[in-house]
Amino acid sequence: MGKFRIRFEPDGGSATVEQGTTILEASRRAGVAMDAVCGGAGECGRCKVRPKGQFRSARSPLVSETEARAGVVLACKTTVEGDLTVEVLPRSKVGKHQILTKSVAEVPKRLTPWVTKKLIELPKATIEDNIADLERLLRTMGAPHMPVPLTALRALPEAVRKGGWKVTVTESSLDGRTEMCRVEPGDATDRLLGVAIDIGTTTIVVDLVDLLTGKVLCQASDYNKQMMRGEDVIARMMFAEEGGREELRFLVTETVNSAISTLLETGSSRAKSPIEREDIVAVSVAGNTIMAHLFLGLRTDNVRLEPYVPVAHRVRGLRGSDTALLVNPSAHVLLFPSRAGYVGGDVVADVLSSGMHRSDDLTLLVDVGTNGEVVLGRRDWLVSCSCSAGPAFEGGEVSSGMRAMEGAIDRIRINDDLSTSYHVLGEGKPLGICGSGLIDLIAEMFDHGIIDRKARVQSLGGRRTRTTDAGVEYVVEFKDRLGTDTSGDLVVTEADMQNLLRTKAAICGACSVLLRKTGESLENIRSIVIAGGFGHHLDIERAISIGMFPDVDRKKYRFIGNGALGGARVALLSGKRRREAGEIFEKMTYLELSVDNQFYDEFQSSLFIPHTDIERFPSAKKGPNGEAGKG
Amino acid sequence: MGKFRIRFEPDGGSATVEQGTTILEASRRAGVAMDAVCGGAGECGRCKVRPKGQFRSARSPLVSETEARAGVVLACKTTVEGDLTVEVLPRSKVGKHQILTKSVAEVPKRLTPWVTKKLIELPKATIEDNIADLERLLRTMGAPHMPVPLTALRALPEAVRKGGWKVTVTESSLDGRTEMCRVEPGDATDRLLGVAIDIGTTTIVVDLVDLLTGKVLCQASDYNKQMMRGEDVIARMMFAEEGGREELRFLVTETVNSAISTLLETGSSRAKSPIEREDIVAVSVAGNTIMAHLFLGLRTDNVRLEPYVPVAHRVRGLRGSDTALLVNPSAHVLLFPSRAGYVGGDVVADVLSSGMHRSDDLTLLVDVGTNGEVVLGRRDWLVSCSCSAGPAFEGGEVSSGMRAMEGAIDRIRINDDLSTSYHVLGEGKPLGICGSGLIDLIAEMFDHGIIDRKARVQSLGGRRTRTTDAGVEYVVEFKDRLGTDTSGDLVVTEADMQNLLRTKAAICGACSVLLRKTGESLENIRSIVIAGGFGHHLDIERAISIGMFPDVDRKKYRFIGNGALGGARVALLSGKRRREAGEIFEKMTYLELSVDNQFYDEFQSSLFIPHTDIERFPSAKKGPNGEAGKG
Repeated sequence: MGKFRIRFEPDGGSATVEQGTTILEASRRAGVAMDAVCGGAGECGRCKVRPKGQFRSARSPLVSETEARAGVVLACKTTVEGDLTVEVLPRSKVGKHQILTKSVAEVPKRLTPWVTKKLIELPKATIEDNIADLERLLRTMGAPHMPVPLTALRALPEAVRKGGWKVTVTESSLDGRTEMCRVEPGDATDRLLGVAIDIGTTTIVVDLVDLLTGKVLCQASDYNKQMMRGEDVIARMMFAEEGGREELRFLVTETVNSAISTLLETGSSRAKSPIEREDIVAVSVAGNTIMAHLFLGLRTDNVRLEPYVPVAHRVRGLRGSDTALLVNPSAHVLLFPSRAGYVGGDVVADVLSSGMHRSDDLTLLVDVGTNGEVVLGRRDWLVSCSCSAGPAFEGGEVSSGMRAMEGAIDRIRINDDLSTSYHVLGEGKPLGICGSGLIDLIAEMFDHGIIDRKARVQSLGGRRTRTTDAGVEYVVEFKDRLGTDTSGDLVVTEADMQNLLRTKAAICGACSVLLRKTGESLENIRSIVIAGGFGHHLDIERAISIGMFPDVDRKKYRFIGNGALGGARVALLSGKRRREAGEIFEKMTYLELSVDNQFYDEFQSSLFIPHTDIERFPSAKKGPNGEAGKG
Repeated sequence: MGKFRIRFEPDGGSATVEQGTTILEASRRAGVAMDAVCGGAGECGRCKVRPKGQFRSARSPLVSETEARAGVVLACKTTVEGDLTVEVLPRSKVGKHQILTKSVAEVPKRLTPWVTKKLIELPKATIEDNIADLERLLRTMGAPHMPVPLTALRALPEAVRKGGWKVTVTESSLDGRTEMCRVEPGDATDRLLGVAIDIGTTTIVVDLVDLLTGKVLCQASDYNKQMMRGEDVIARMMFAEEGGREELRFLVTETVNSAISTLLETGSSRAKSPIEREDIVAVSVAGNTIMAHLFLGLRTDNVRLEPYVPVAHRVRGLRGSDTALLVNPSAHVLLFPSRAGYVGGDVVADVLSSGMHRSDDLTLLVDVGTNGEVVLGRRDWLVSCSCSAGPAFEGGEVSSGMRAMEGAIDRIRINDDLSTSYHVLGEGKPLGICGSGLIDLIAEMFDHGIIDRKARVQSLGGRRTRTTDAGVEYVVEFKDRLGTDTSGDLVVTEADMQNLLRTKAAICGACSVLLRKTGESLENIRSIVIAGGFGHHLDIERAISIGMFPDVDRKKYRFIGNGALGGARVALLSGKRRREAGEIFEKMTYLELSVDNQFYDEFQSSLFIPHTDIERFPSAKKGPNGEAGKG
């Protein structure tokens, strides 16, 4: 079998692969990040490319006539039969995503990280007192039984002598037992560093935190390299089950390590003295259940299938060396516990970040990311659930959808002639529409009668609405004004609208079920916390007007941004918050919606704009354009 | 620079090396084990080879005229200048050593290994009870906070389902804290295995132990591969300091792993079911301080130099994964604590094996290996010391000396005409003399007046004694009757005798000093325990007659063979013995002889045969041939 060279354009990258390899696989080997929601199953139609050279391609219904004529194919359905030059179409690229890195979690007043440094002065060894370095140190510290890992032990003799019989000992006590983590020569008590890590399905964000001041020294973020193997958790789990578990573990570790590497570099230049991996002596990680499993190399098949059983909710005693992270091998790693398969450590961290568990006020927390999680409760109780919101608002399952990256329409208005005015991230020509743009679009289309209450697209005549074999579609923008010359017009179809409607109905339904199950009412809610990547770009007024979020006083809404990262950070800094994280995990019950009839009913009722029960959305009731709600 | 191919004969092996590489280095790369006591410093004269081809060699006084004429050179002083065929002379080879593997340590009556297995039956997961596998297991076990290592966690989901919701849990509690070590599907309570390891400077012995019965299932042993980098601990430490620490760690680990690999194979075929590395869930290791340091990758430079400070006496919390051993990565590894730089865990294990710490009788324990260690004491106290006995009785520093391997004279008598009768290990022609042979030889030479009380060789005329530039030498066997055609006659020189005398004086002196320091007398000693490789081949009568061991009732002598291995084994099996090992370590004081004037005096007085103070050796006093002692 021949081997052929595949070059990717316009951003470069190449790979030599065997005949018969798919272009998608070749892109992975070339390190070219390509959008493939379905993990290469030919189902999402996102990996569109235009190859030149010898290849063999299966025709896909996800490639339009116009596209096919222009030479567009799906990378996952096209095999290499000779040397190729492959143009990656703009919407297929994993581009400069606006990663949600901000979080509003406060710096605790009293800093109590689980690591502390102590300067120890040792009596010099003599022939009369020549006990070993370790026992001399422990004797001086008055802690004869303190466990000392091998890495610290290996560094000990040099540290003792280089420091002139003065050493700085880092003690670590995460799980109730105090261990030695590190020994440095001389007085090194002025530096104590940790990292807080948010492992998201899509993106990973890492904070380098000064544990002596509580400040974030710098931050790095990137796409989760696992994206190459499927965009959502289901695709990842499938890939893991087909023998890819170790690869996924490697990919996520590599992403985090590459971010930490950046932090070490940036941090060093800011601190004007080198920061080494050994300096990072505390690690706090929040991620959803699947991400946590894959990060630890744990099986996910039983999470995916009924009865949805994770391997572990809470994994204790993890060290840097267990995780292969670019940190001190003896550093304790705190991994936020997961309540259930679809309510992970990220949600526990969200709650911790929000402070709702310390409040007497009833609070509703909604995190809309690749999945949707909802938590209702207050100081004495918390109920959580997960709804398969799906990636519609993150650009998945919507033909013109894309993530909030360069070229995405993030705000949009429909004019009276049904033409559109919009804002594009990065200010260039539009390539697609991201979550907040889609919310705007649904609201505007409904206001202009382009969709009805069931989100069915109406044929209104003119150029903007038109009938195809698949039903009526609305043209958001015409081809000639788009940032790509190969696709057709930017449209939303009947199917797109149904996907979006289902997503909003899932979230709305989840909120309603939690209220009903707990016997609470909307009026009792004193605070609504919106967390996660979606919330960051969101126009809350619009989201309420389409019935996605409860129609209550807007002042009750609060955005906490990346709550997972914020939670991970406060856990690094405060023993009180760490205990609270444990309490949230213990206290928070989990409601399995997938087998809940009430949820099914609520979901069905929410498949309307704003809702079949209009009483629940008084703002919408006041006028078809929702003016009252805008005040 | 050119690269050349070096072939080794007669046993094969080859390497391609750069011009200028020494033949000794080439032999290491070729994996040909060559004897090099001094680690390649050109000082021991043991690495004799006969190369054919282009080479450059420095003349060494350690190569005789005859040898030089036959083309013999030192491998460490000869560099490669072209392709070579190198004959390795028989005495230079590291051959089939008779490794001391027997030990007499008893099987404890009550078996209490630190690992136990439990069969756990789990309630099946349902959609109503879908907590994670880990929490389900811990809930059922009633141990919600038990630490579980990642390796066990990774195996958990498969074990649970393969075992039909029945699993066997291995719990391990070595340092007071109970951890989960392993999870297996179904009922696996009928197998519980551990290994006991003796890491000697020269040889390594490993027992595969059935922890349910206390029986040794099989045993494997081999040379410590570190031998390639120097024969004694000093040479190893020097090599470590010159950047070889990681290599030495690798070499010793590889030796142990190769032995374990053999055990897995032998054990599997005997058990008629495969034994995997994961089945080995407990590891007990005894070695001297330097071996323990190198095994863990710890620096040794401060042990070598005054004030002789080890990195650690006692290292807790070690796991299989820390040591890279071919065992379950979560297995706890018990490493016998070292009292001082030259009284290591092997001596603690010796004492444990001997039982002297439980006895009311005063006991003297002597372990003569590559080094000499002596312990005196009883139930309430123990004093230890180390004397630089040197490797003379193991074949080092003696021109005709060799280790107890094939071709070694291990028993010898001198006839009236000064000719010799001897026994050769392996029954072939002799190549040299091992420790027990040398003891015989000193005694016989003294009895026949060939050496005087100061071990000076006497010129008696005839063919057997002859005068050279270096003094008088005695011919043990002539060239034509030896198993090598390249060296000269097998002789003992003036210098050899002085080396041997110093070694015996060091041991004798150490025993005397311990008695004097503790205010005890020879008569009070109720038991003398001989441990270690040397003791195994030893004629105790002869050793007493030259003044090496105390002249007391022979019935008091007891051989325990490989005490280090025996100690490691009982520690695997008995919690009581493990506690005792800790107590021995705590209780045993250490006497530093290198700065002790009394030792110097005793050593000087012992540089006589049998001793300057003949009153101490009544057997010898009775007659010049020591007949009385032979009764």
